[in-house]
Amino acid sequence: MSAPRFHVVYRITPDDPRPVEAHAKDICIEETVEIPEDCVPKGHWEAGIVGKIESITPRGGEPQDYDVDISYRTDIANDSIPNLLNVLFGNISIRRGIKIVDIRLTPEQLKAFGGPRVGIDGIRRDLKVHGRPLATTAIKPLGLSAKELARLCGGYAKGGLDVIKDDHGLIDQHFHPFEERIARIQEAITAANAQTGRTTHYYPMIAGRFDQVEAQMAYASAQGCYGVLVPPMLIGPDTGFHLARKYKLAVMTHPTFTGTHFHDPRHGMTPAMLLGRLFRIFGADISVFPNAGGRFTFSNQECLDLADAMREPLGGLKSGFPSPAGGMTIEKVGAMLEMYGNDTALLIGGALLKYSPDPEVSARAFLTSLEEAVARKART
Amino acid sequence: MSAPRFHVVYRITPDDPRPVEAHAKDICIEETVEIPEDCVPKGHWEAGIVGKIESITPRGGEPQDYDVDISYRTDIANDSIPNLLNVLFGNISIRRGIKIVDIRLTPEQLKAFGGPRVGIDGIRRDLKVHGRPLATTAIKPLGLSAKELARLCGGYAKGGLDVIKDDHGLIDQHFHPFEERIARIQEAITAANAQTGRTTHYYPMIAGRFDQVEAQMAYASAQGCYGVLVPPMLIGPDTGFHLARKYKLAVMTHPTFTGTHFHDPRHGMTPAMLLGRLFRIFGADISVFPNAGGRFTFSNQECLDLADAMREPLGGLKSGFPSPAGGMTIEKVGAMLEMYGNDTALLIGGALLKYSPDPEVSARAFLTSLEEAVARKART
Repeated sequence: MSAPRFHVVYRITPDDPRPVEAHAKDICIEETVEIPEDCVPKGHWEAGIVGKIESITPRGGEPQDYDVDISYRTDIANDSIPNLLNVLFGNISIRRGIKIVDIRLTPEQLKAFGGPRVGIDGIRRDLKVHGRPLATTAIKPLGLSAKELARLCGGYAKGGLDVIKDDHGLIDQHFHPFEERIARIQEAITAANAQTGRTTHYYPMIAGRFDQVEAQMAYASAQGCYGVLVPPMLIGPDTGFHLARKYKLAVMTHPTFTGTHFHDPRHGMTPAMLLGRLFRIFGADISVFPNAGGRFTFSNQECLDLADAMREPLGGLKSGFPSPAGGMTIEKVGAMLEMYGNDTALLIGGALLKYSPDPEVSARAFLTSLEEAVARKART
Repeated sequence: MSAPRFHVVYRITPDDPRPVEAHAKDICIEETVEIPEDCVPKGHWEAGIVGKIESITPRGGEPQDYDVDISYRTDIANDSIPNLLNVLFGNISIRRGIKIVDIRLTPEQLKAFGGPRVGIDGIRRDLKVHGRPLATTAIKPLGLSAKELARLCGGYAKGGLDVIKDDHGLIDQHFHPFEERIARIQEAITAANAQTGRTTHYYPMIAGRFDQVEAQMAYASAQGCYGVLVPPMLIGPDTGFHLARKYKLAVMTHPTFTGTHFHDPRHGMTPAMLLGRLFRIFGADISVFPNAGGRFTFSNQECLDLADAMREPLGGLKSGFPSPAGGMTIEKVGAMLEMYGNDTALLIGGALLKYSPDPEVSARAFLTSLEEAVARKART
């Protein structure tokens, strides 16, 4: 009867003439018992096993939509990522006009999922970088040799970048086999770190098959990588988080194959909930997302909400870096600092290749632009 | 230069005034090298590492849309499920107006992924059921005890159902812990099979965390289950297929958490491509999907296309059963047979609970209705 419950706010835009209450009740049943209402055992209602409508708030607008707060027993979602997603947005993902705009887990659930293991403070401590955003890049393009990719990374590290990640297309292709690529790149970065006395972290992409992915994590850890780039929707929503925790690697999440949730304002989940709140709860120390004004479709407000979701107080969980990316340039650094503030991992990828053939020169220009923007901001 | 290539047809609805060629080129670059066009190394163009536009076909309609055939080198997708999805619809999932309507892998790729291990013929042979659709149900509702669920299943098996699957909400909750549930249900079905001399197959839901999922597969196999119910988007797109192959279990796929691909006719993938073509290539012997006219939003044509994708000739791959479900009733059996033909796993879930409190009676009514419909059809 008094089992603890967690809350999900679904923004419902009814796609038929039935009242919103009927749509909300559909969700309560579909995401739990999934049987006709009159077949639900009486004890199930009493025990709260069916989802429960807690409130319905009309939002106005045309067509009319509503924010509906539905609660579920925590023991139905079972503190497991696959199970939680199944309850949040399983079969109802195949209906229309349902968008998740808020997810409020209980303190016990937050503790069980654990959140970022390292978090913003941990990453800053290890990098010894404070008072400014992190300068981050992606290793591109797919199809170069591991040696060429390593040369680029050595230059980026010498030029002062804080974080280097694989492009998400770099997996285990014969152009740059996983082990050779990770070993050569980490070597080049380690050598540069020894030379500069600074620290650059490397996050290789982990996207192997089920039978490869643990060995890949173990290998990245053994090579001295600080973290890994995890694509939850390619390798399984909990696979990367689980293994990174086991091998004590920081987690940078990648949004590849997540986009169908976002493009319709009336369906899916908001970027803040999926790439921010959920990925952070699951363990993202850094969440990469497509910045407004780049090649993708997120609005300024969606990006800011996502950044908030990574950093706002949330039970006792650590905060994580939002990492705006996708079509960013050195010229935009000042604007990005204004928009996101210091606790951000600014990610400039292709534009560094374009800036100069020498990665060290590009990296230095990025750093200089960043430091100038921070100084400018401090003066105002 | 002459590396083999596979083809993807993207239906593009341009969301800005640029010509469709510009949108198509965006896809070619975004899904491979992901850098500004003028930074792509010359050798990359020559070697065909960037996606290549093979044809653009205007479809008319308002707004104007186009079917764009793009080819990729097979060694970029690397015969791995995470990698293939990354190339098909990775970052471009975060853009607008792009729908995958066809995927044509090479014979070598089809062979590498393997397709259904058992397929329609294998399942029919084991069941000794020919000339009619399979009568299938789901075990509901979540929250009953394992003993009660087993009692239901024993009744369904005695009543003559061919296939029983877990409801996808039954995971490892304390109401019905995974091992106890699987053991009790398989026991009840085995006992019923011994009594009737017929065969009923059981497919338990496999949705554990990364560190649980292989043990769950092994357990299901050890208990004598014929197959497993696999939710690719909850446990990882290749996890369930990989493990089911390893433990020689038939695979029934579940569409939970896939729906954001389908609800917008101008974005995502068609149900036929994701739940049909791809899931079959990956290994689905049976693909469950929401039938038209039930609680979900698929059209008749989308359902028929999906059924075709499971059964049409495809390299040397076996065919798999389409399994229309979701709000189906005994009264609709005739119409479903007309629509889908014999090689179908008709799935009636909650309506069996509603039909009678005695599962054996419900199952018998389902079978009778099915046999009558088949006889009626034979006469016409």
